[in-house]
Amino acid sequence: MRRRQALVGLWIILASVSTLGVQDVRAADKPLPSWSDTATRSAIIDFVSKVTREGSASFVPVSERIATFDNDGTLWAEKPLPVELSFTLQRVKELAPQHPEWRTKQPFAGLLTGDLKAALAAGEQGIAELVVATHTGMTTEEFTHEVETWIASAKNPKTGKLNTRMVYQPMLELLDYLRANGFKVFIVSGGGVEFMRPWTEKVYGIPPEQVVGSSGKLQLEMRDGKPVLAKLPTVELIDDKAGKPVGIQERIGRRPIAAFGNSDGDLQMLQWTMSGPGPRFALLVHHDDPKREFRYDRTDKLAKLDKAWDEALAHGWTVVSMKRDWKTIFPE
Amino acid sequence: MRRRQALVGLWIILASVSTLGVQDVRAADKPLPSWSDTATRSAIIDFVSKVTREGSASFVPVSERIATFDNDGTLWAEKPLPVELSFTLQRVKELAPQHPEWRTKQPFAGLLTGDLKAALAAGEQGIAELVVATHTGMTTEEFTHEVETWIASAKNPKTGKLNTRMVYQPMLELLDYLRANGFKVFIVSGGGVEFMRPWTEKVYGIPPEQVVGSSGKLQLEMRDGKPVLAKLPTVELIDDKAGKPVGIQERIGRRPIAAFGNSDGDLQMLQWTMSGPGPRFALLVHHDDPKREFRYDRTDKLAKLDKAWDEALAHGWTVVSMKRDWKTIFPE
Repeated sequence: MRRRQALVGLWIILASVSTLGVQDVRAADKPLPSWSDTATRSAIIDFVSKVTREGSASFVPVSERIATFDNDGTLWAEKPLPVELSFTLQRVKELAPQHPEWRTKQPFAGLLTGDLKAALAAGEQGIAELVVATHTGMTTEEFTHEVETWIASAKNPKTGKLNTRMVYQPMLELLDYLRANGFKVFIVSGGGVEFMRPWTEKVYGIPPEQVVGSSGKLQLEMRDGKPVLAKLPTVELIDDKAGKPVGIQERIGRRPIAAFGNSDGDLQMLQWTMSGPGPRFALLVHHDDPKREFRYDRTDKLAKLDKAWDEALAHGWTVVSMKRDWKTIFPE
Repeated sequence: MRRRQALVGLWIILASVSTLGVQDVRAADKPLPSWSDTATRSAIIDFVSKVTREGSASFVPVSERIATFDNDGTLWAEKPLPVELSFTLQRVKELAPQHPEWRTKQPFAGLLTGDLKAALAAGEQGIAELVVATHTGMTTEEFTHEVETWIASAKNPKTGKLNTRMVYQPMLELLDYLRANGFKVFIVSGGGVEFMRPWTEKVYGIPPEQVVGSSGKLQLEMRDGKPVLAKLPTVELIDDKAGKPVGIQERIGRRPIAAFGNSDGDLQMLQWTMSGPGPRFALLVHHDDPKREFRYDRTDKLAKLDKAWDEALAHGWTVVSMKRDWKTIFPE
C-alpha cells in the first residue's frame, strides 16, 4: 500500500513536471506574447496559418512570402519628432560654423534657434534642403560612420530613452513570428536608406540588403588611389506614398503579400500589396495611447493617418489599436 | 583459428564498406566537380576555407559573406550576341508594324534587315534607343510576361540550344558552393533588371531581390481602379562599369567580399570589392575556348576584357581559363 502510494505520488510528481514542461514549451512557443488576445492578433495568426498550410489552396511558397514594414511610427516611435530629423538637427548644429549664412536662412535658422515650426514651414522643399545639406557631400562610408556614432547615444527628447530602445516590442515579435514562418521581411521607409542600414540589423535583425528607403545619387570616385562612393546632392528616390511601390519593385522585384504601416505615406504600399492575387494582409498601427506612447492620427502634420485609415475601414484591413491590442509597447 | 579468420574477414568487409561509404560521401561532397584540379580551383577553395574558419583572423561572419556575379559571359554565354539583344531584336520585329518609320531609321532599320553592324554603329546611344523602344511604355507585369514567354523557347543562334541551358556548369557549382558556405549571392549585371528577374531563380537559384541590373524609372498609376507600375522611357541606373559599385551600394548596401566577372564592365566592381578590409576575392572568366564555347578578349566590341585583365595580372586576381580550368562548360 505504501509502495502503491509512493508510486502514485511519483506519478503525480512526474505528471506535474511533465505538464510544467509542456506549459513552458507552449508559453515559449506562443507567438506574439505582447499582443492582447483580440481580433487583431487572431487576424495575423489566421493569415500566417493560411499561407503556410501546405497543400491548401491558400498556401504561398516560401519564396513569395515577402513582407514589407514602414519604419517611423510602425517599428519605432516617431514622436515628438522623427529620429532622422533629430539627427539632421544635430548635423546642422555641427556644420553651422562652416555656414554663417544659415543663421538667417530657413529652414536652417529655425533649427538652430529651436523654432521647429519656422524650420518646417517650407514643407517638403525645406526638408529636401536640410537633407542635401546634412546627408550629402561626403562618402557613403563617412556618412555611415556619422550615423553609427550618433545612433549609439541618441535619445528620444521626451522620454530620455535611447531611440533604439523605443522600438515596439509587439512589432519585434511580429518580425520574429513572420521569419519563423518563412517570410523575408523588408523595411520600406520614407527615411534615408543610408541612415537606416547602419543599425537595422542590430535593432530589428533586418540586414542592409533588406532595407529600402529614400536615396540620393551616388558617384564612384577615386580618392588617394582608392574607390569611394560620393553622396551627391541629387534625389534619386523619395520612398514615400507613390514612391513605395516603386521602391519595392526596383529594390525587391516582387509584390509583398503582407504590408505594415501607420500613416498615409504607407497607403500606396498597402494598396499595391493588396491588389495582387492570392491571400494578402495589410495592417495599420493606430497611435491611440497617449499614456504609454503618443496619440496622433487624422490631423498630424508629419505622419497623418487619414485617407489610409478610411481605406482600411472600407476594405477590412487590420488596424492596431496600440491601447487595446498591445500589452506592452517598448522592450523592458 | 577459423573464428579469428572469420573475425578478420568481417573486419575487412566492414572496413571496405566503411571506406566505400567515406569515399562516396567524399565524392558527393567534393566541391566544384566540373573544375579541373588547377590553381584556380585551389584559390577559390582556399578563400572560402579561410573566411569560414571560425576563430581565425580571416574569419568573416555569415552576414558579411556577400558575393556578386556579373551575368553575361560570367554565368551564361553572351555570344554570338548578348541574350537581351536577341530579345530586343525580337521585340523590334514584333513592334515594327506599328512603327513604319523604323524601316529607314537606325538602329531599327539595321536590326530589321539583319545588318547588326549598322544597327550597333551608333554605339551606346543606339542601344539606349532600342531599350526605350522595346523595354518601356508598358507595365512591369506586362514586360515580365513578355520576358517569360520569350525566354521559355529562346535559343542561342549558333548552338541552337536554349539560352537557359547555355549557363556555365562550373559557375552553377560555384554558386552552390558559396551558398553552402553561408554566402548570399547576388547578380550585378549591366543587363536590365526586369529582363533578368523573371528567370534567375529558376536558372541560378537567385531570387529577384538578389538581382541588381540596369533600370529605368517606374511610375505608379491607377488603371481600371488597380495600381500598376508603368515603365517610363527614362534611364535610372546603367549598372555597368562605374555604375556597378553604385548599384551594389544602392541595392545591397554592403561591399561584397567576393566578385566575379569577365569583362572591363566588371572592373570597377572588382576594384570596389578588393579595396575593402579583410580577406577578399576577385575572379575573371577568360573566354579562351573556341572549341567548346567562344574566344574573345582584348578587342571584343561588346565585352572587351582588356584593362580588367591587366589589373587582374597586376594584383594577382584569379583568372579562369575556360579551356584549362573547366572540365565541362555547359550542363549535360
